[in-house]
Amino acid sequence: MWVLASYPDGMPVESNWRLEQSEIESPGDRQILARALYLSVDPYMRGRISAKRGYAKGVEIGDVMIGGGVAEVVESRHPKWNAGDLIETFGFGWQEYSILDPETVTRVDPNIGPPHAWLSYIGMPGITAWCALNNIGKPVEGDTVLISAASGAVGQVAGQLAKVAGCRAVAVASTDTKLDWCRNLGYDIGVNYRSASDLTKEIAKACPDGIDIFFDNTAGPIHDAAMQNLALGARVIICGTISLADKFEAPDIGERFLRQILVNRAQVSGFLVFDHLSHYDTARRELADLANNGKLQFKTDFMDGIESMPAAFLKLLHSENMGKQLVRTEFAKGLRE
Amino acid sequence: MWVLASYPDGMPVESNWRLEQSEIESPGDRQILARALYLSVDPYMRGRISAKRGYAKGVEIGDVMIGGGVAEVVESRHPKWNAGDLIETFGFGWQEYSILDPETVTRVDPNIGPPHAWLSYIGMPGITAWCALNNIGKPVEGDTVLISAASGAVGQVAGQLAKVAGCRAVAVASTDTKLDWCRNLGYDIGVNYRSASDLTKEIAKACPDGIDIFFDNTAGPIHDAAMQNLALGARVIICGTISLADKFEAPDIGERFLRQILVNRAQVSGFLVFDHLSHYDTARRELADLANNGKLQFKTDFMDGIESMPAAFLKLLHSENMGKQLVRTEFAKGLRE
Repeated sequence: MWVLASYPDGMPVESNWRLEQSEIESPGDRQILARALYLSVDPYMRGRISAKRGYAKGVEIGDVMIGGGVAEVVESRHPKWNAGDLIETFGFGWQEYSILDPETVTRVDPNIGPPHAWLSYIGMPGITAWCALNNIGKPVEGDTVLISAASGAVGQVAGQLAKVAGCRAVAVASTDTKLDWCRNLGYDIGVNYRSASDLTKEIAKACPDGIDIFFDNTAGPIHDAAMQNLALGARVIICGTISLADKFEAPDIGERFLRQILVNRAQVSGFLVFDHLSHYDTARRELADLANNGKLQFKTDFMDGIESMPAAFLKLLHSENMGKQLVRTEFAKGLRE
Repeated sequence: MWVLASYPDGMPVESNWRLEQSEIESPGDRQILARALYLSVDPYMRGRISAKRGYAKGVEIGDVMIGGGVAEVVESRHPKWNAGDLIETFGFGWQEYSILDPETVTRVDPNIGPPHAWLSYIGMPGITAWCALNNIGKPVEGDTVLISAASGAVGQVAGQLAKVAGCRAVAVASTDTKLDWCRNLGYDIGVNYRSASDLTKEIAKACPDGIDIFFDNTAGPIHDAAMQNLALGARVIICGTISLADKFEAPDIGERFLRQILVNRAQVSGFLVFDHLSHYDTARRELADLANNGKLQFKTDFMDGIESMPAAFLKLLHSENMGKQLVRTEFAKGLRE
């Protein structure tokens, strides 16, 4: 198991975690013991390893690092669960075995999608894209939708859902390879934020009528450039702030956009998927239908073995992943992917 | 008439305008000629004398300065209007006489409120407070509502409407005299932003459960301190940015609050009263009823004579006014105030 060894000072490094051995314990009454098949690394984790207040309790030094996973039940002391059942849970932790309270897990039905997909396009990132775009962005046919981290776990789905809704989808990503993939997914145009000499102007060129929906997964310089290109009545979804990964301990200083918000009567909304629980089933069903009908593609970046957890997370923070980043354990051998 | 002589560089000064004499012209077919009784100065005017893009066309050098007023018809070539009728219009200009198209004016009924009130609590500022608080803020009984520029034309009304809605109203203003007046109006507590040694902490003390609705008329340091005290699900209304009066030509640099917006799932909305035209009549009726029943108080700061227009506007920008700032012309003599 990976425990938190220290809070990062700026950008996290591998030594912020420590790999420890521990005995596999037995489940208590009405509990289950499960072993990880796939473990997820996600940008929100950066917020949980900061002494600053976030939307959820942070990880304490010495605690097992939090994280979601898809797992297989190996021992059950709960009448509704049997060894061999597959589960998805947000509360697995960076470890191979976890004792869980079944009230906190989702049953994985492999007919809806392959097990790992329950961590990606029919899991938290996909459902995030669906709920944020539909419930906050409220897309209207013809809207221009700009999506940052467009090839990431959330961005990939958001762009395709924007196209399904009849919008123009504009990708912002860090490399031309990622942007090529976005084009394959159906994005109309892409902006490489690393090679752009003037990002505000590049975005203006890609969005000549302004941005109606800005699906922001990054904050930082991409946010700044997008905010200067809002259309009247724009909706800005603050879904993630991964570009602040190295700034959680210091204030984020830069240009502010209150005049742009006022002038465009824009609406900037913080988004957290847990607020939208009542839409999970609808979202998952729609996403699975789209995928099964070939209308939703998704790329996953696998690393192997529990020992790669910190490396996989840092790959994500440094924008070096290509698609949803997962860690696959040896127990996942032979599963459909 | 006051014409714009130059765009301000930072904080406006009197020499940005020039007083010119001109002949009183005759109205054309279906037009009216009116003479000003009260002229309004309002913070939004700062945005109209900048070369930067705003929500409306700016004033060009040499144009009559824009502004609203209450006026009396002196000559009519429109069948529905007669000399002696009272009007309120957003498009009067900083001048004593104006030729108007009656389609752009509101008929002033002195039974609803005294003529000058059509520029204050039953006019644009009062209707702004009503629409912004109710349509964007959506107050719920028990909410904490923090209002910046609390003793100003919009803030006075917003605080009293918050109390009517069963909320806790917290005033932020520049002097203790203004805060005393806010207490008289029913505000529960006040924070003096000029004398506060740590404004963020002072606001935290005044809002121990966080801010549910932040009615922001100022932007700047008050905005910054409030944003660090948001409650979960907070609504932030960007209604005015008067503290940026000296910064319209340069970017507004400072701490940004995307993490606070995300963590609290806050909603930050730009507000412009013109988007809420369909609520004007309801708002005016409710405000007049409250005032006639002694449940809405309002302070007006009068200056006299057309020659005081720039001085009145600058008084406002420097936060030296006490209540709604108006300029009264000699033609207003004898009117109920």
